[in-house]
Amino acid sequence: MVSGTIRPGDNPDLTKERKAASFDVNQLSEFIHGGKEVLARRKEILEFVESKPEFKQETPIEFLSREERYEQQAKNAVAMTEYATDAIDGSDFFGEGMYYQQLIMGRDLHALSLHYVMFLPTIQNQTTEEQLDKWLGLVITRGIAGTYAQTELGHGTNLSQLETTATYDPKTEEFVIHSPKVSAAKWWPGALGKSSTHAIVMAQLYTDGQKYGPHPFIVQIRDLEDHKPLKGITVGDIGPKLGINGSDNGFLLFNNYRIPRENMLMRYSKVTKEGKYIHPKHQKLGYGSMVFVRSIMIRDQSLQLAAASTIATRYAAVRRQGELVPGKGEVQIIDYRTQQLRIFPQITKTLAFLFAASEVRDLYLKVTEQLSDGNVELLPELHSLSSGLKSVVSWEVSQGIEQCRLACGGHGYSQASGFPEIYAYAVGGCTYEGENIVMLLQVARQLMKTVAKIKSGNAKLAQIDGYLKAFNVNRSSFNGLTGLTPQILIQDFEQVARIQVFGVYSRLAELKRTLPEHEAFNKISIDLCRASRWHVKAYLVKNFFAYISRCSGAERVKQLLVEIASLYALDQISAGLAHFLRNQYYSQSQADQVKMSIETLLERLRPEAVAIVDAFDFSDRELHSVLGRRDGNVYENLLKWAQQSQLNKSDVLDAYHKHLGPMMKEGRAKL
Amino acid sequence: MVSGTIRPGDNPDLTKERKAASFDVNQLSEFIHGGKEVLARRKEILEFVESKPEFKQETPIEFLSREERYEQQAKNAVAMTEYATDAIDGSDFFGEGMYYQQLIMGRDLHALSLHYVMFLPTIQNQTTEEQLDKWLGLVITRGIAGTYAQTELGHGTNLSQLETTATYDPKTEEFVIHSPKVSAAKWWPGALGKSSTHAIVMAQLYTDGQKYGPHPFIVQIRDLEDHKPLKGITVGDIGPKLGINGSDNGFLLFNNYRIPRENMLMRYSKVTKEGKYIHPKHQKLGYGSMVFVRSIMIRDQSLQLAAASTIATRYAAVRRQGELVPGKGEVQIIDYRTQQLRIFPQITKTLAFLFAASEVRDLYLKVTEQLSDGNVELLPELHSLSSGLKSVVSWEVSQGIEQCRLACGGHGYSQASGFPEIYAYAVGGCTYEGENIVMLLQVARQLMKTVAKIKSGNAKLAQIDGYLKAFNVNRSSFNGLTGLTPQILIQDFEQVARIQVFGVYSRLAELKRTLPEHEAFNKISIDLCRASRWHVKAYLVKNFFAYISRCSGAERVKQLLVEIASLYALDQISAGLAHFLRNQYYSQSQADQVKMSIETLLERLRPEAVAIVDAFDFSDRELHSVLGRRDGNVYENLLKWAQQSQLNKSDVLDAYHKHLGPMMKEGRAKL
Repeated sequence: MVSGTIRPGDNPDLTKERKAASFDVNQLSEFIHGGKEVLARRKEILEFVESKPEFKQETPIEFLSREERYEQQAKNAVAMTEYATDAIDGSDFFGEGMYYQQLIMGRDLHALSLHYVMFLPTIQNQTTEEQLDKWLGLVITRGIAGTYAQTELGHGTNLSQLETTATYDPKTEEFVIHSPKVSAAKWWPGALGKSSTHAIVMAQLYTDGQKYGPHPFIVQIRDLEDHKPLKGITVGDIGPKLGINGSDNGFLLFNNYRIPRENMLMRYSKVTKEGKYIHPKHQKLGYGSMVFVRSIMIRDQSLQLAAASTIATRYAAVRRQGELVPGKGEVQIIDYRTQQLRIFPQITKTLAFLFAASEVRDLYLKVTEQLSDGNVELLPELHSLSSGLKSVVSWEVSQGIEQCRLACGGHGYSQASGFPEIYAYAVGGCTYEGENIVMLLQVARQLMKTVAKIKSGNAKLAQIDGYLKAFNVNRSSFNGLTGLTPQILIQDFEQVARIQVFGVYSRLAELKRTLPEHEAFNKISIDLCRASRWHVKAYLVKNFFAYISRCSGAERVKQLLVEIASLYALDQISAGLAHFLRNQYYSQSQADQVKMSIETLLERLRPEAVAIVDAFDFSDRELHSVLGRRDGNVYENLLKWAQQSQLNKSDVLDAYHKHLGPMMKEGRAKL
Repeated sequence: MVSGTIRPGDNPDLTKERKAASFDVNQLSEFIHGGKEVLARRKEILEFVESKPEFKQETPIEFLSREERYEQQAKNAVAMTEYATDAIDGSDFFGEGMYYQQLIMGRDLHALSLHYVMFLPTIQNQTTEEQLDKWLGLVITRGIAGTYAQTELGHGTNLSQLETTATYDPKTEEFVIHSPKVSAAKWWPGALGKSSTHAIVMAQLYTDGQKYGPHPFIVQIRDLEDHKPLKGITVGDIGPKLGINGSDNGFLLFNNYRIPRENMLMRYSKVTKEGKYIHPKHQKLGYGSMVFVRSIMIRDQSLQLAAASTIATRYAAVRRQGELVPGKGEVQIIDYRTQQLRIFPQITKTLAFLFAASEVRDLYLKVTEQLSDGNVELLPELHSLSSGLKSVVSWEVSQGIEQCRLACGGHGYSQASGFPEIYAYAVGGCTYEGENIVMLLQVARQLMKTVAKIKSGNAKLAQIDGYLKAFNVNRSSFNGLTGLTPQILIQDFEQVARIQVFGVYSRLAELKRTLPEHEAFNKISIDLCRASRWHVKAYLVKNFFAYISRCSGAERVKQLLVEIASLYALDQISAGLAHFLRNQYYSQSQADQVKMSIETLLERLRPEAVAIVDAFDFSDRELHSVLGRRDGNVYENLLKWAQQSQLNKSDVLDAYHKHLGPMMKEGRAKL
C-alpha cells in the first residue's frame, strides 16, 4: 500500500486526481523504491515507530523554543538508538537506516547525530587493535557520546591549515592540545556543544620539533559523572542557524589540554613513546568516510525534493483560485501552465537524482568491498562522481524546493507548509561536506587530467568519463517529441559537456603559456565549474534513461518514466539553451521545439502528477506538512495548526498590558 | 561620513582594501543616497536612535523565543511611533521613514506594522467626511490599533471570490459580518493576531437581496478595556513562518457579527439606511494603496540585497582560505574568480534596483499629485511598472541574497551572518502584494494591449513601452568592452524584449483562432511571463545608464558606475544568452566576448568592491551581521555572539540529566 490510497473523507479534488491517473501507482512506487519487499518493510518500520509512545509527537516541533527542541530531539535520539536493532536492518543505512531516522527525527539533527555516522566509523577505521578494544564497546553501548571535530572558525575547506595543535611531550608521554588563537576554535561539529563527552579532534601534530600535518586524536571533553566541561576545555553551542536548530553544533577551545599518547588514533601514522613519528603505509585509505557521507547525501537530498514536490503537487490540486473561463468557477491551480512549469520539473529532478543516488550507493558498496582488500582502483571514480553529484544535486534540490514553496503562495511561507524546514535542511548541503564550488573545481581538475590522458593516447578512462573519447557531432538530431529517443538526448548532453570540457582545457593550455598554472586555473575557474556541471548533467541524463530501461513488466509505468526523463532533459536543455545553440549545434527551430515539447509534456503529466508523487510513498508523519496532507483537507487543518501557536497560549499577551494598552489609553485620553 | 571609514583596530585586510580603492567613497555614497544632506540626515537619525535607551538592544533578537520577540518588537514599535515626529520628516516615507523603521525594528514586523501603512491611509482615503472625523483622531493618537484584513485562507489573489459576507439588515441598520466556512477565515494580515483592536475588513456586500462584491468595513475586534476578542469574533496568531516572527500575522473569523451601517467606508460606494446600494463615481481611485506598497517594496527589496552584498564582500576580504600560489600563504577569498562571480553581480543588481526604485518613487509622487486632481492618466503606467519591477526585483534580490550567503560558506548558515533573516524577509516579497507570476501575467496582458495599439497605428504609448515601436535590428553591435557604449547594451536588451513581446503576441493571435482567449492565454503563459521579464529587464538597463548620466562632478565615480552598469547588463545577457543568440542576433564570437568582458569587469571591480559596499552606508546596527561588521573583526565576535546562545545559559542542560546521562550510565554498566 502506498501512502496515496484513496480514503473516505478525502478532499474530492485529490480523489478525482487519484482516480484519473492512467497507471498503477503501486507499480511505480515499487520501481522507485526497489521492489515490493522494500515497500513492505517501509510500512513495517512506520508502524513500529507509530506504535511506540516515545515517538508520539504532541506539539509539532516548529512551536518549540530552541531549548525545548534540543531536549525533545535528544529524548527521541536516545529512544531511536535504543530501538534500532528491533526496528531496522542496521547494515542497510542507505535504505532502512535513513528512513527510520527521518521518521523519528524529522529534518533536524540531534545529540547523537555524529555518534554513529562519524565517531563510530572513525574509531573502527583509524584505531590500532588495542585502541579498538578500549573504545569500541563504549561507543556501541552508548557509554560515551562522541562527535568529530575538524573544521575551525578560521578554516573549513583547507584542512592543511588547521590551527589547533597537538604537541608531543615525551617527558609525560602526552600530547598537549592547544588552540593558539580564537580562529583555531573548533566550530560547527554536530552534537559538540552540549551533548558529546568525547570528540575526535583533528590537530596539527608536532613532535621532535617538527610539524607533521593534521592527525586525529580522541579527546574527552566532558566529565562522565557531572557532564561538566573538563579543565582546559571551553565548549558550547554555536547559536541558532538557518535550520537544524534541534542540534547543538558546537565550538571547542583547548588551553594546553593534555591527553595520553595512546589517544592519537594510530592505525596509520604513529608517534612512539620517544616521540618518533612513523609515516603511514597507505595514505589514501583515510578517504572512505568523507565519501560515505557524500554518497548518503545524494539520496538524502533527493528525498527532500521528493517531499517538496509532493506537497506542492497535492496542494496545487486542492487549491482553487481564479477562473480560466469566466463564470465557470475557480480552477485547481495545477491547471495553470505556469504552475505546472514550477512544479513538474521538480518531480523529474527528484527521480533523476534518486536513480543517480542508487548508482552511487552501488558503487560505494563495491568500493568498500574493494577497500577491505586494499584495492583503491574505483575510489577516485567514486570520489569524483559523489563530489560532482553532491554539488549539482544539492544546488538544484534547494532551488527546486523554493520553487515548490513559492508555487504554494502565501501558505508556502508558513511553517505549516513544511517548506521552511525542508529548505533550511537541504540547502545546508550546498556548503557542508565540501563547499559546492570547491567540489566542482576538484571535479574539473580531474577532468583536465582525463583530457590530458586522452590527448596523450591513454585509453583507460573511468566509465563516467568514457563519452569524452567519442567524436564530436556537428548537428543535433533532436526534432521534437515525435521520434524522440533517449539516444538523441544523451548525445546532445554529451556533446555539450564534451565541448565545454575540451574548450576549457584548450583555454587553460593557452593561458598556461604566459601564466603560472594556479593563476591560469583561477582565471578561468568560472568555465571550469561550468564544464564540471555539464559533465555531471550528462551523467544524470544518461543514468536516468539507463535506469528506466530496467523497468520491466509495467509498460505504462515505463512509458511514463520515459516522458518524465524527457521532460527532465528538455527542461535542463531549456535552462542552458545557449550551450546547445553554440555553433548552431541546435538550430533556432530546434530550440523552439524544445519549448513546445516541454509544453506538451507538462500537459501530458498534468493528469498523472498527483499519482506520481503518491508513489514517492511519504506518510503524513514523514512529510510533516499541513499543505501536503494525504487527505488534502488543508484549510481546517491550517486553522488547527495555527491554534497551537506560541502566541495563542493566552488571549491577551503581556505586551498588551505593558506596552500597547497604556499607549492606546493615553492616545484616547488626548481626544 | 560613510560607515566604511577606517578606524584603528580594524581588520588590516579591510583597511588595506579601503585604502586601495581608486575613488572617493563619499562621492559615491552621496550619489547613491541623493546628496550630502541626505547622508547627514541619515547620520542624525542614527544618532537619535542610538541615543535613546529604549532602543538599546541587549540580547540580539535571534536569541529570543517567539513570545519574547513579539514583546520586544511591540515595545520598540510603541517607542518608535512615539518618537517619530522628533526623529524624522514623516512625509518622507521612502527615505527617512523607512530608514528610521529599519534601524529600530530590523527585518521584522511588529504590532503596529499595518497601522500607519494600511489602516491610516485607508481611513484617509475611503471615508466620508463624517467618518474621517470620527476615526482619524483615534488612529493618529494611537487610541486604537488597526490592521487591514483582506486575504482569506482560501483566497489571496482572486479578491472577487472572497467568502466573508457583510449582509445589510435594514431593521437594525447594521451589517452582519460572517465567515460562512473555515476557508473564509481572514488569514495573514500583519498585527491582526494579538495586537489590533480594529480591522478594515473586506467583505462581500449583500443588500436588498443582491451581491455587490468586496467592500471595506471598519470593524472593532477587541475590547478597548481588557483587549479580549469581542463576542462573535475568533482571532489569533497564524503561527511561525519562514521569517518575520516578531509579527503576529493573524486569522479572524466572524460569527454573525453585527456592526453599525456607518462602519462601511462610504467615500465611494454607499448603502442607505433603507438598504439601497449607491455605486461609486470613480472606480479606479481605490488603486492607490496597493501601488503605494509595491512602490515602497522596490526600494525595500533593493536595500536587502545591498545589505547582503555588503556582508559578503566584507567577509570575502577578511576570510583567508587556500593558497593560489603554493607556499605564498592563504589568500583573501575575494581573490577567487568564482567568488567574484557570486558576489559582484549582486552589487550591480543592488544599484540597478535602487536607481529604478528612485524612478518609481518619483512617478508615485507625480501620480499622487495627479490623483488629488482626479487625474488618473499615469496610474496604469505606475501600476504596470511597479508590478513588473516588484516581480523581477524581488526574485533577483532573493536569489542574490542566497548567493551572498553561500559565498560565506558555513558561517553564512549561522544566524550570526544575518543572512537567514535577510533572506526570509526579502523572499516574502515574491509572494505578498501580488504573487510574482500573477503580476508578470498582468504586465503581459498590458503588453499585449500595447502591441495591439501599435499594430492598429495608435501611437500614444507609456514612456516605458516606447521602445516597442522602434524597428528591429538584425545584428548586435556589441564587440566587447572596447568601444562599448550604453546605447549598444540598451539596444540589445530592447531588441530581445521586443522580439519576445511581439513573438508571444503572434503566437497568441494564432492560438486564438482555434481556442477561446483564456485557454490560449494559459497555454502560452510561460512565454508571456518571459516577455514581461525581458520588458522589465530592458527598462532596468536603460534606467541604470540614464540615472548614472546624472552623476556630475565626480568623473571617477561616474566611470566606475558605468563599469558596474555594464557588468550588470552583461551578467544578465549571460544568464539569458539563448535569447541573444536567437536568429544569430548575437554571433558565437559575440557570446564569447560577453564571457570575457564579464571576467575583465570582475577583475576591475576587485580592488573597488569593499569601498563600493561601504558607500551603501550601512551602520553595524542596521546591518545586524557579525560577518559584515565594519571593523572586520569577525572571529572573536562570532565567539562572543555564540556565547549568548539559548543553549549556553547553563553548562549542563536538563536533557543530559533526563536522557543522555542515564543512557551513558546504563551503557557503561554493560561493559
